[in-house]
Amino acid sequence: MKHVLRIRDRLRVETLDVEEGTSVSEALRALDREAVETPCGGKGLCGKCRILLARGELSAPDERESRLLSAAEIAAGSRLACRARLLGNAEIELAWRGEASIVTAGPSSAFALDPPARRVAVFPTAPKLEDRSDDEARLLSALAGALPPDRAPSRVALAALPGLALAARGGEVEALIAGDEVLGASSRRAGERSLGVGVDIGTTTVLCRLVDLGSGESLGARTELNAQRGYGADVLSRIAASEEGGGLEALRDRIRSQIARMIVDLTLDAGASAEEVASIALAGNTTMLHLLAGVPPGAIARAPFTPAFLAGRAEGAAALGLVSHPGCAAFLLPGVSAYVGADIVAGMAAIRLHESPGNSLYLDLGTNGEMAFGGRDGILCCATAAGPAFEGAGIEKGTGGFEGAIDSVWIEEGSIRYGTIGGRPANGICGSGLIDALAAFLDAGIVDETGRVADADEAGALPPALGALVAQGEDGPRAYLDRKREIYLSQADVRAAQLAKAAIAAGIDTLLLAAGRGLDEVDRLYLAGGFGSLLDVHGATRVGLLPPELADRVLVVGNAAGAGATAACLSRQALEACSRVVSLCKYVELSGRSDFNAAYIERMIFPERG
Amino acid sequence: MKHVLRIRDRLRVETLDVEEGTSVSEALRALDREAVETPCGGKGLCGKCRILLARGELSAPDERESRLLSAAEIAAGSRLACRARLLGNAEIELAWRGEASIVTAGPSSAFALDPPARRVAVFPTAPKLEDRSDDEARLLSALAGALPPDRAPSRVALAALPGLALAARGGEVEALIAGDEVLGASSRRAGERSLGVGVDIGTTTVLCRLVDLGSGESLGARTELNAQRGYGADVLSRIAASEEGGGLEALRDRIRSQIARMIVDLTLDAGASAEEVASIALAGNTTMLHLLAGVPPGAIARAPFTPAFLAGRAEGAAALGLVSHPGCAAFLLPGVSAYVGADIVAGMAAIRLHESPGNSLYLDLGTNGEMAFGGRDGILCCATAAGPAFEGAGIEKGTGGFEGAIDSVWIEEGSIRYGTIGGRPANGICGSGLIDALAAFLDAGIVDETGRVADADEAGALPPALGALVAQGEDGPRAYLDRKREIYLSQADVRAAQLAKAAIAAGIDTLLLAAGRGLDEVDRLYLAGGFGSLLDVHGATRVGLLPPELADRVLVVGNAAGAGATAACLSRQALEACSRVVSLCKYVELSGRSDFNAAYIERMIFPERG
Repeated sequence: MKHVLRIRDRLRVETLDVEEGTSVSEALRALDREAVETPCGGKGLCGKCRILLARGELSAPDERESRLLSAAEIAAGSRLACRARLLGNAEIELAWRGEASIVTAGPSSAFALDPPARRVAVFPTAPKLEDRSDDEARLLSALAGALPPDRAPSRVALAALPGLALAARGGEVEALIAGDEVLGASSRRAGERSLGVGVDIGTTTVLCRLVDLGSGESLGARTELNAQRGYGADVLSRIAASEEGGGLEALRDRIRSQIARMIVDLTLDAGASAEEVASIALAGNTTMLHLLAGVPPGAIARAPFTPAFLAGRAEGAAALGLVSHPGCAAFLLPGVSAYVGADIVAGMAAIRLHESPGNSLYLDLGTNGEMAFGGRDGILCCATAAGPAFEGAGIEKGTGGFEGAIDSVWIEEGSIRYGTIGGRPANGICGSGLIDALAAFLDAGIVDETGRVADADEAGALPPALGALVAQGEDGPRAYLDRKREIYLSQADVRAAQLAKAAIAAGIDTLLLAAGRGLDEVDRLYLAGGFGSLLDVHGATRVGLLPPELADRVLVVGNAAGAGATAACLSRQALEACSRVVSLCKYVELSGRSDFNAAYIERMIFPERG
Repeated sequence: MKHVLRIRDRLRVETLDVEEGTSVSEALRALDREAVETPCGGKGLCGKCRILLARGELSAPDERESRLLSAAEIAAGSRLACRARLLGNAEIELAWRGEASIVTAGPSSAFALDPPARRVAVFPTAPKLEDRSDDEARLLSALAGALPPDRAPSRVALAALPGLALAARGGEVEALIAGDEVLGASSRRAGERSLGVGVDIGTTTVLCRLVDLGSGESLGARTELNAQRGYGADVLSRIAASEEGGGLEALRDRIRSQIARMIVDLTLDAGASAEEVASIALAGNTTMLHLLAGVPPGAIARAPFTPAFLAGRAEGAAALGLVSHPGCAAFLLPGVSAYVGADIVAGMAAIRLHESPGNSLYLDLGTNGEMAFGGRDGILCCATAAGPAFEGAGIEKGTGGFEGAIDSVWIEEGSIRYGTIGGRPANGICGSGLIDALAAFLDAGIVDETGRVADADEAGALPPALGALVAQGEDGPRAYLDRKREIYLSQADVRAAQLAKAAIAAGIDTLLLAAGRGLDEVDRLYLAGGFGSLLDVHGATRVGLLPPELADRVLVVGNAAGAGATAACLSRQALEACSRVVSLCKYVELSGRSDFNAAYIERMIFPERG
């Protein structure tokens, strides 16, 4: 018996006729593209083939799915394509890579499509000898006639006047409006779209997503290493570099031209033109936004850690060097403090934490582990210095979340297996691979609960397939994932990961203490960030990064900051949600707190084998 | 018996002990500078030694003063220094060159010193670990505490953030506020002043005046030929040049860098720094302001003559390329139409035409003769194409109002004498010299009422001293002012002046017709513009440029546009006055009006000898 499987992604909807009982991943092979990745070969071990069931009948989640997905995720519709079998007609959604559950939250939680900056086409009255109004006055009056009073702009920016002078000669004029200002004006060109870009400027990676402001559709996304990386891997080294002569300008120009180029690339790929981009919303940590704006970030690095600006801003994107045409708005999203920036705010807004009943824990795991706890009645937030291990930096064979990076590791048939991003030959270990590898090495007895890698004697006592993974390097023992390709964790790598996970775990402890709540009172645990989106719950709880008590409440939300920025570009509601989040947030300073220090030391040890 | 003569100008007050009966010009010789010019040697013939009696006793105006000054001017205190004799203690004011009667209007009519953009120094709370406010929030809150609610800014411009980040570390911060925005912020530097610049961008000349925003004092002024002149002498040729490839940018950059350099020069001369300039107010005709803003002015040249913008604008001066530091505002003053621009508006605001009872006629005589008629109940305005003759262009020996230009001509002892600007050797004839020369040639019978220059026969019939001034040139007869220096009016020059004066005179006729008023209902006639400020009433009525009926109601107000721009920089009230003027103005289009055409033809003829 055959059923209909509808497959949606942001670009299209496809339909397949599928024999009952076929697994979704098998069914998807009929598509002319790789819809999901299955590095473990469909055995339910790597957890990389996630899809979302929108409606219809799939088999009940099996034991392997329950191990890799939290109960909350399963309740929200997340499934592994290799395990879920078709029992009737069904509709599934394929995730945007790295933004899985944001998309999967489904239309019920989507923000209303209502871009805060948009092009409005009007016919100003033609210039007439009897009517001596200038172009600016005639445009504003036409817009006042076309828009509700609270949406009609009251002024035209200087940068918009040259375009207006050429356009307002009697035809249709398209005005780009942001707030109460017209930022650009031009003759209406048939077929031209209004495009938006959501940007998340991470210390390590920069994400840009191109969307259609008219339909809300995604037209593509790009992730690149931050072009400032040559100036240091973390926020503090970038700040130090900004204080050298010319450093601030160099850092500013690097990120501006990188984003500008990414936008050109994205529009080219989408068969569009950069001139069609009407709105850019930018999330990023506080330092990244200072550097983008060309504002000295020095005070962020020194107590009392006071940024120059935190409030959201609407600017002309051309003034920020992001585009070269005047008709484009740039929204810098608001932040909470020096170390809880607009990226965290945008992520919380994206998942509507500010409207959630009960208590949610929100973790953005990267170089800094930013976290928040609360909901619609108030949010406590803090930041811990986890170091760059989870971004793949400071790890000997570490790498970012790019093709060829090992991002999942599991034990299969008595040995250790791994998957890579894109299924390419392994070239390093990214953050989620690091956690998975640690978990596997702990389970295999290659690393003990104090973080010590087995010595030659201990390795000899292990089953041969596992013992063979241990070797002595120059600086001590190494635990190998792939001997042929020389990919391993050194003893120092394990220590770095141990410190990082202790910082995160202690931050969670302290935040809950400050809120006077216990783990049983955490209703949801959101994992955000490029690293978080690839993390699987099993590994994270196994190494003690996350409390095992919360394993069934985890929701992986991927690059929520990028999703929030994209939403802010598409929806005034989402932009306002960011401000609402900020107003709910109270910052908890961890440095110097004795309860944090105590928790940090306790959380160094790995949990014993379960 | 000795009296005390107090002498004020914008820079100082000096005191002299003067014997009773001494003329003011003689008394002024005791000063170590040339306080007034007396090219006619103190005979009361050239009218160039005007001063203003502020208080005290001078001799009653004699017949020569009454000929060169209008009754209205005398009533306002204007006198000729060479004729007025000291009868008791007195205080006089020396005029700013070219801005005579604006200054002379005296303190009663001055605008309140209250700059629309100014630096405010506050102590924001020091950054503290407990108080996580960013610099922007702490600055805005300090300003809200220091200023009345309607003056407190609500946002900090992007360009101000870099300076703020460095300044807001615990000391005094100086914020440059314009409207509801902080445009710049820096640490307070001891001894630093807030300076302002009033600018009038004329098609031919550019005036910049530097003032102290704290005291209202003038610190100097510069007038230069507009650096765009190479692109054509009049507005229409500039517009044509702007439509060539790269022309708009070239014209924009020329005027921007010229003003920027003039500001640097002025501040250097005043022992100040360009960084101290906090506010720039710019008047200029509509085309000049379009070019400054980089806005295509093409539509100004073609019916229906619709400019891109007319409303007043507050911008960052750095964005307009006028200064390189962020903490400086630029106010573009508002205009009425394509040909009645911000210069006319600023001029009318400067003399408070919008508050005047009765009916005033306001003339700005330059390449375009702009004029307005009315007062506090409404203003009619229009523009006539007078051509560049009054700016010294299109006249064979014409020149601008610079040193060495002949600017006054009179008949003395049966021959023709002239004075030059600065008393330098004559190098050409400027606009006011052209009118004076025509008047003298008409009185001498060298030019007849149809505008024809005497031929050899007619010259032979004149007294020899006068007949010798006529000679035949290649293109017809010439009327000489100086045979040695070859300075003369050709027949073509007389025709050009005739057309120009007819356009102005016909404009006045039409404006009065449109208002339904007669000449007897004109209470005051203001003469503005560089040309107008040097014009004497005798010559202007003799050639029929001005109706003789209005001779006793003339007030020469000089570069009122420059004075208005300077006032706008110093006083919010003056800036608002510009908007008020615009709202009172109704534009009368002359082209195609049959009453204008009829008047134009009638006004070609010179009046007969009185």
